[in-house]
Amino acid sequence: MNYRTVTVNASKKYDIYIGKGILGRAAEFILPVVKSRRFALVTDDNVDGLYSDIVCDSLENAGCEVCVFAFPHGEASKSHSVLLNLYSFLCRNHITRSDCIIALGGGVVGDLSGYAAATFLRGLEFIQIPTSLLAQVDSSVGGKTAVDLPEGKNLVGAFKQPALVICDTDTLKTLPREFLIDGMGEVVKYGMIRSLPLFEQLEKGSLENVTELAEDIVEQCVSIKRDIVEADEFDRGERMLLNFGHTLGHSIEQHFNYTGITHGKAVAQGMMLITSIAEKKAMCVKGLYERLCGCLKRYGLYSESIPDVKILAEACLNDKKREDGYMNVIICAEVGRSSAVKMKMDDFEAFLRKR
Amino acid sequence: MNYRTVTVNASKKYDIYIGKGILGRAAEFILPVVKSRRFALVTDDNVDGLYSDIVCDSLENAGCEVCVFAFPHGEASKSHSVLLNLYSFLCRNHITRSDCIIALGGGVVGDLSGYAAATFLRGLEFIQIPTSLLAQVDSSVGGKTAVDLPEGKNLVGAFKQPALVICDTDTLKTLPREFLIDGMGEVVKYGMIRSLPLFEQLEKGSLENVTELAEDIVEQCVSIKRDIVEADEFDRGERMLLNFGHTLGHSIEQHFNYTGITHGKAVAQGMMLITSIAEKKAMCVKGLYERLCGCLKRYGLYSESIPDVKILAEACLNDKKREDGYMNVIICAEVGRSSAVKMKMDDFEAFLRKR
Repeated sequence: MNYRTVTVNASKKYDIYIGKGILGRAAEFILPVVKSRRFALVTDDNVDGLYSDIVCDSLENAGCEVCVFAFPHGEASKSHSVLLNLYSFLCRNHITRSDCIIALGGGVVGDLSGYAAATFLRGLEFIQIPTSLLAQVDSSVGGKTAVDLPEGKNLVGAFKQPALVICDTDTLKTLPREFLIDGMGEVVKYGMIRSLPLFEQLEKGSLENVTELAEDIVEQCVSIKRDIVEADEFDRGERMLLNFGHTLGHSIEQHFNYTGITHGKAVAQGMMLITSIAEKKAMCVKGLYERLCGCLKRYGLYSESIPDVKILAEACLNDKKREDGYMNVIICAEVGRSSAVKMKMDDFEAFLRKR
Repeated sequence: MNYRTVTVNASKKYDIYIGKGILGRAAEFILPVVKSRRFALVTDDNVDGLYSDIVCDSLENAGCEVCVFAFPHGEASKSHSVLLNLYSFLCRNHITRSDCIIALGGGVVGDLSGYAAATFLRGLEFIQIPTSLLAQVDSSVGGKTAVDLPEGKNLVGAFKQPALVICDTDTLKTLPREFLIDGMGEVVKYGMIRSLPLFEQLEKGSLENVTELAEDIVEQCVSIKRDIVEADEFDRGERMLLNFGHTLGHSIEQHFNYTGITHGKAVAQGMMLITSIAEKKAMCVKGLYERLCGCLKRYGLYSESIPDVKILAEACLNDKKREDGYMNVIICAEVGRSSAVKMKMDDFEAFLRKR
């Protein structure tokens, strides 16, 4: 069976394995990399029924011990309440600093269990097995982990690099259509900020052929993110480009209480909003907004109605990307080329109102 | 006004300032080191009434903005419940990644607010102003931060180096006698593990002259901890020496539900217990147990009755220092010289029963 490897040189060097049906070979990838033979596998109730057994069997057949913690699926679980249950589970199962946590699932699973791996006993080893497109292209690379607060998403977190990442693109086949759409929001973003070839490929494709091309798409996205993260592991500069569409996107998610809209659609709306304004202010090439919308339409990500910008500007005030009365707004100047523009909060509000 | 400076070269380089009455000069130490001019000062209700105003005045007179979060004093506050209130407070006050958290108080304040500084928005700047002897000699150096779980102390945490530490030894004058005793447990430990001169000085002193000699004592302890931590920032080797008396000490604290005994007394009992066994097994010089007890007596740290070792061994099972069925037991061979001995859990239990 073939698979692709992307190597990440963060503060810790690790490999991302991408391939069809590689979940059953988990132990083969894991055992050479971590010294632990005891694993706490963290997942959600959806993924648990589909894939936990495959991973557990692989590890147990190799002589390892695995305990499984499954929590209710959905963003609402990225809370301190679930986190405390997870800590409790780790205590009950006598997980020590030399054991290892495996995240099997989407972004919520990866973020929450990564944060637990960063903080329980001040940190133990961590492996990511992302099973959603969003998690495969985005949250499994970069070492960012988080939990939400009632006040907002991802407000608490830590940097935690995994020991390895296993992306089995066959898991995308069981992914509900809306979650595939969700992930495509980030895929389009990668094209916009860094890769004309990827964007052009997306402009020719459709939602129907995504799973088929997934290995290629995931490899491209992960490589782009790798390049950006390697240049800026602790999120002080270039990494901001990854936030294209996200500052407004987060405000849109917040506006819908994180339930009425997926992350991908919110990011798509954020990209549309910022690009429409940028085009009006001649900060990007002409026609970029139309081109972006055209691509988003192919993946079910285009929306006619977007929340009022005034409301969004207000919500942005609480966003962590704001620094000292300033915020960094990511502008895409043309497909594949983007940069951060530092704006005063007031100017940003005025900028938004221009729309 | 004179003060002493100890420089720590951790992953981040920072200074510890030690002096009498230097609290009122807080801004003078802080402003050259951090770029932030907005501060969230975290403290407990006891310390708040005594020292918050002094620090706030100093910073506000220098043109800074300070908001104060005071929580009920005591170990019970080192919980996720108080942590979540603190996160909420930081959100309400629009604290951003470029702002700074100041811990003003004892170990609980330092641990909890340090953990918040490590995790809120994935980390912001952090300053320690320890006001208890225990915090000045121990928890303000080394970058360990933590919160407790119902299952045990310090089970969740992060490494977070401060931008600077200010130890005003005059604050020890308002410290209740029991807390001064508490801190002396760690001071005696430093003598035992690394410094014959410090131990000899302690053998001549008494609780009454501690505050008077505090600058000297704090400087010695902090320098010992600095040397050890610099050699092993992430707690994989030599730093284990700092756990002398602590594995059993934590079990003793747990046995008393963290309320019936201070940390210092528990550590003192832990040191006594391990040294009495070590002496029976000829792992240290003869008479060391007596000498240790003699020194502890001078500072109100000697106890006749110590919990049953069987109960303690059980509790140690859950201790994070246990790795893979093994635990590292710190043995002091003679005053000023100590080392880690790796023992199987079973052997450790048998070792304890030898007493």
